[in-house]
Amino acid sequence: MNNTQRISAPDFAHYEEILQSSILFRDIKTEIVSEFMSMSSIISYPKNSNIFNIDDKADWFYFIIEGWVKTYRETMDGDEVVIGILGKNEIFGENAIFENFLYPFSADIAENAVLIRLPIGILAKKIEQHPELSINLLRHANAKISISHKENEHHIVQNAPQRIGCFLLNLCDSHTKKQSLNLPFDKTLIALKLGMKPETFSRALTKLKEETGIIVNSRNVEIPSTQILAKFCCGTCSSQYPCSD
Amino acid sequence: MNNTQRISAPDFAHYEEILQSSILFRDIKTEIVSEFMSMSSIISYPKNSNIFNIDDKADWFYFIIEGWVKTYRETMDGDEVVIGILGKNEIFGENAIFENFLYPFSADIAENAVLIRLPIGILAKKIEQHPELSINLLRHANAKISISHKENEHHIVQNAPQRIGCFLLNLCDSHTKKQSLNLPFDKTLIALKLGMKPETFSRALTKLKEETGIIVNSRNVEIPSTQILAKFCCGTCSSQYPCSD
Repeated sequence: MNNTQRISAPDFAHYEEILQSSILFRDIKTEIVSEFMSMSSIISYPKNSNIFNIDDKADWFYFIIEGWVKTYRETMDGDEVVIGILGKNEIFGENAIFENFLYPFSADIAENAVLIRLPIGILAKKIEQHPELSINLLRHANAKISISHKENEHHIVQNAPQRIGCFLLNLCDSHTKKQSLNLPFDKTLIALKLGMKPETFSRALTKLKEETGIIVNSRNVEIPSTQILAKFCCGTCSSQYPCSD
Repeated sequence: MNNTQRISAPDFAHYEEILQSSILFRDIKTEIVSEFMSMSSIISYPKNSNIFNIDDKADWFYFIIEGWVKTYRETMDGDEVVIGILGKNEIFGENAIFENFLYPFSADIAENAVLIRLPIGILAKKIEQHPELSINLLRHANAKISISHKENEHHIVQNAPQRIGCFLLNLCDSHTKKQSLNLPFDKTLIALKLGMKPETFSRALTKLKEETGIIVNSRNVEIPSTQILAKFCCGTCSSQYPCSD
């Protein structure tokens, strides 16, 4: 069961600061952010709970304080197609504004999460009054287009082991030779995010380990050389390593 | 060689009407559209000519009056990855506003085309002054996100023959049983758009013909039953046939 709380007075400044530094509210007047917050709630969700379903009436959009959220659609055959795995500081659900206020996908909690739930009606009203807010939203939409185009490209040009390697490279926080990192969520979810069946993912991971010397123990990944990993993954892509996408 | 002409007085009303009905300028005051047009040109391009390259400085964005435009990036290995094949009434290049005024992809003419070339600096200025313009641009960005997500999904859930069948179904202008249609551009370009190597495309087309009874003669395609074609293609997808995507 989720735990919903209005933003209380002691926490107000804290969350205001977080929102103010987000892509949506950057350089937006404090009173506008406060107006949003006065109608918002902080919600703690346990893993696997549902936030909303596709075609549900959209009263809210969401900002992720911590945890991971999976957005997805289901095929006619009942398979799940993951659209995104979203983490800290990411926003979702806002594009229902352009879909007759119906969510264009479903959203579940992938790892225990805390979200700010904001009123979408206020967003729709405010972007008509404040161009700087719609420009921020445009910046956000444009970033999503770039990510989606890049994912599309990866489906075309990379094989399955390269796609996993690329996902790992993007988790590396520096480009030093050796890296040790923890997977942010479990392998089943990584497979879904990369659009692979679990058995394809297993075979591809085995191949990637053989080719690049990486070692995977549960969620811990040891990368002996990011250069070798990049050499294996990046030649087929249109971005140059280290990439900013 | 392309043929560039300022919009002349006799054509002004004609192009103003076309722009005014586009996704970007819908419900925008005529004087704003006229201001754009006073600094715009009509350009006729022959097939295969280049419009701009990735990372070129972006002074313009484009509206397609007729013909087809290919947007693409190149991989480190020199392969072309097609982002979109755009046709009549579509806009491109405008998102350079959010990429430091550098084009984030290259654009070539896929089939002889006539474009309106509009000043991007004016767009950047006007969206700050007129929220209705940035909301139209947001609507446009959101449509592009939906298309890109759907293409991504197709790479995950559909095999190559199904992807070709889906492309053909989207060209059908009605859902009567039998259809006869002309491909809008050549098969090499369709293969690129669908992210397939030419040999994969050929094999997949052969399989599609066997499974659904379609007949392809050069650019002419006879579809004996859209229902059979839909049955073959659509089960694995999250949209229901006939789909609006």
